[in-house]
Amino acid sequence: MHEDRETARVEAFSDGVFGIAMTLLVIEIKVPSHELVAAQGLAQSLVALWPSYLAFLTSFVTILVIWVHHHWIFALIRRNDHPFLYWNGLLLLFVTFMPFPTALLAEYLLHPEARVAAHLYTGTFLAISLAFDALWRHASRRLLAPNATIAKRDEAAQITKQYRFGPPLYLAAFGVSFASEAGSIALCLLLALFFAFRGWPGGK
Amino acid sequence: MHEDRETARVEAFSDGVFGIAMTLLVIEIKVPSHELVAAQGLAQSLVALWPSYLAFLTSFVTILVIWVHHHWIFALIRRNDHPFLYWNGLLLLFVTFMPFPTALLAEYLLHPEARVAAHLYTGTFLAISLAFDALWRHASRRLLAPNATIAKRDEAAQITKQYRFGPPLYLAAFGVSFASEAGSIALCLLLALFFAFRGWPGGK
Amino acid sequence: MHEDRETARVEAFSDGVFGIAMTLLVIEIKVPSHELVAAQGLAQSLVALWPSYLAFLTSFVTILVIWVHHHWIFALIRRNDHPFLYWNGLLLLFVTFMPFPTALLAEYLLHPEARVAAHLYTGTFLAISLAFDALWRHASRRLLAPNATIAKRDEAAQITKQYRFGPPLYLAAFGVSFASEAGSIALCLLLALFFAFRGWPGGK
Amino acid sequence: MHEDRETARVEAFSDGVFGIAMTLLVIEIKVPSHELVAAQGLAQSLVALWPSYLAFLTSFVTILVIWVHHHWIFALIRRNDHPFLYWNGLLLLFVTFMPFPTALLAEYLLHPEARVAAHLYTGTFLAISLAFDALWRHASRRLLAPNATIAKRDEAAQITKQYRFGPPLYLAAFGVSFASEAGSIALCLLLALFFAFRGWPGGK
Repeated sequence: MHEDRETARVEAFSDGVFGIAMTLLVIEIKVPSHELVAAQGLAQSLVALWPSYLAFLTSFVTILVIWVHHHWIFALIRRNDHPFLYWNGLLLLFVTFMPFPTALLAEYLLHPEARVAAHLYTGTFLAISLAFDALWRHASRRLLAPNATIAKRDEAAQITKQYRFGPPLYLAAFGVSFASEAGSIALCLLLALFFAFRGWPGGK
Repeated sequence: MHEDRETARVEAFSDGVFGIAMTLLVIEIKVPSHELVAAQGLAQSLVALWPSYLAFLTSFVTILVIWVHHHWIFALIRRNDHPFLYWNGLLLLFVTFMPFPTALLAEYLLHPEARVAAHLYTGTFLAISLAFDALWRHASRRLLAPNATIAKRDEAAQITKQYRFGPPLYLAAFGVSFASEAGSIALCLLLALFFAFRGWPGGK
Repeated sequence: MHEDRETARVEAFSDGVFGIAMTLLVIEIKVPSHELVAAQGLAQSLVALWPSYLAFLTSFVTILVIWVHHHWIFALIRRNDHPFLYWNGLLLLFVTFMPFPTALLAEYLLHPEARVAAHLYTGTFLAISLAFDALWRHASRRLLAPNATIAKRDEAAQITKQYRFGPPLYLAAFGVSFASEAGSIALCLLLALFFAFRGWPGGK
Repeated sequence: MHEDRETARVEAFSDGVFGIAMTLLVIEIKVPSHELVAAQGLAQSLVALWPSYLAFLTSFVTILVIWVHHHWIFALIRRNDHPFLYWNGLLLLFVTFMPFPTALLAEYLLHPEARVAAHLYTGTFLAISLAFDALWRHASRRLLAPNATIAKRDEAAQITKQYRFGPPLYLAAFGVSFASEAGSIALCLLLALFFAFRGWPGGK
């Protein structure tokens, strides 16, 4: 009971941070200036904001998928310890940082130096996937409920198997950003969808 | 018990997102510049902000009503599954986006191209109503408690009947935005009040 | 049990809105520009921001006190109904709006037209006190637990007696804002402290 | 049960405020302007933002550590009273204020008057440590569960012993800011790590 309550608080705090980071993303979509609208019309000015929409969508979907997985692993653990709070904090540090590379990408996606923005954007996702991996390694080794059923243990093993793919795939996205910034963003969006559907156990 | 706890976390996360989206709306109301105040006085400058107040009020009331209904349908379901988390995520995506069309409408309501802003504003509400509809369809088919009482089942059927009106009415508001932007905003405000009072079962 | 859970969600949602509104207040404190710092030094520029600090402090303390009272009345009720959700929503509407009059006051407190900013600032507090009063009237009439102990009923009667003073006192602050903007802000700060200490039952 | 629920709400509210304050920190990292990028390239412009990253990191880690300790002391107490809500409110006031000195430090760390920004930055941390100390003194004297086990009481005594170091160490950081702004920021970061590891009881 007490342990449940402690985990509940880590979840509530993390939920707050995830929710705010996702909502702050919208701030980077700037209302077009009156000058721009006078020059090319409002409809055209809104269409020209597509890099902002794309960056918003990709970041939103990725953070949502991370939240779903976060939710999933917390359903398996029933305790927390001090290192866990800090591994979770490291994950939240990178999630909280996301609005900055998102705004940077939105601003510079059509700029000759878009590649630099893509490095930071995919690099932040890589950092998130590494932090998530570390969080799960720690949790799966030390925090599974001692009386976990075999079904739970199987689920944990299955998660471990799936998460093995996270860091290498985001490393690949980071690598692609050196060849094509558009390709690396598209890959990030695909990866979010992939982890959304892959983490979808048959019977559930 | 475990199921309860899982649903609780989806609710907490959604509450965070709803609350932040509603609070961020106020950021679009800009303090008038010293130049403007020098030209026409502070009182007059504040009155001239009425499109901002109207956009803030309409968006706030609509998100509040959505939250109340969200609260209501979560009181009926006792489980969640993976697709449900993503349907809920789709709803939150559009709710999170709301501060942008709200700020756009506030900025351009008195501009010759106000109609474009009204399309995006009412269109976002239409998207929200479609996402809400999809969420409820999924929940009502698969996630009602298996041991739901007849009263609960009746309530669910009643909700289904009511929600049938959501998407067509918001489609109408979107359509009206092609004829009159003021009319479409007024309709959105009326719809929020309509759903507030309609979703008010007699005995409660 | 089910009722408890429903109330819990209204609380969590309201807590989110209170917390965000309080935190957004800090955004109105603007980092001084390099031009200003070049002209008068950083220390002097920071001192010149005192209207921002005062507005931040007064708004923060007031929202904190409202939250404490909100917390207190929710400890007495065990049910909610639809009108209650909307009365609570009205309260949250005004709380959410607070960052705007706070920023306005910070910007215009030393301006010849400061009085207009003070009207809006104290007027928003008046609106909050009226909404809070309406929320409590509804709750105390219809939502006290049916099996409330005599102690609880006494506490409710005591709250009713105390809250009677809220709207008239904030009406007074609004009135004072027509004579002296500084006086009306000072009165708001005093009122927050008054309600903080007044709502402090001897035995607790 | 009732007491548990009351504490839970203070925690949820505080978690919201901590989470939002941590997330708002990222807003101070400004996307470099097109003029700057044209002059020195995007990569160089991003590197030049290092004072923003350092300020973000130091503030984030410090608030995270405060949250972990907040979490820890709430695990020991089972009741709250009115003064406790206001001591907690005082702590939240300073936490909420953090984005302002963080943005100030990021903007002026490389400016001749950086020292003034460092005074405000370290001074805010000092205020937080004093508020935290006051909160714990009040909680440890009056709010430990009456039936606390000896283990809990020992843990409380251990916390008291550890927290004794907080205010003097942050006073030292404030003092160092008069000699070297870089040194005082480094000390703040070290202190956060120190409290992270120090608050890590052997068996946990």
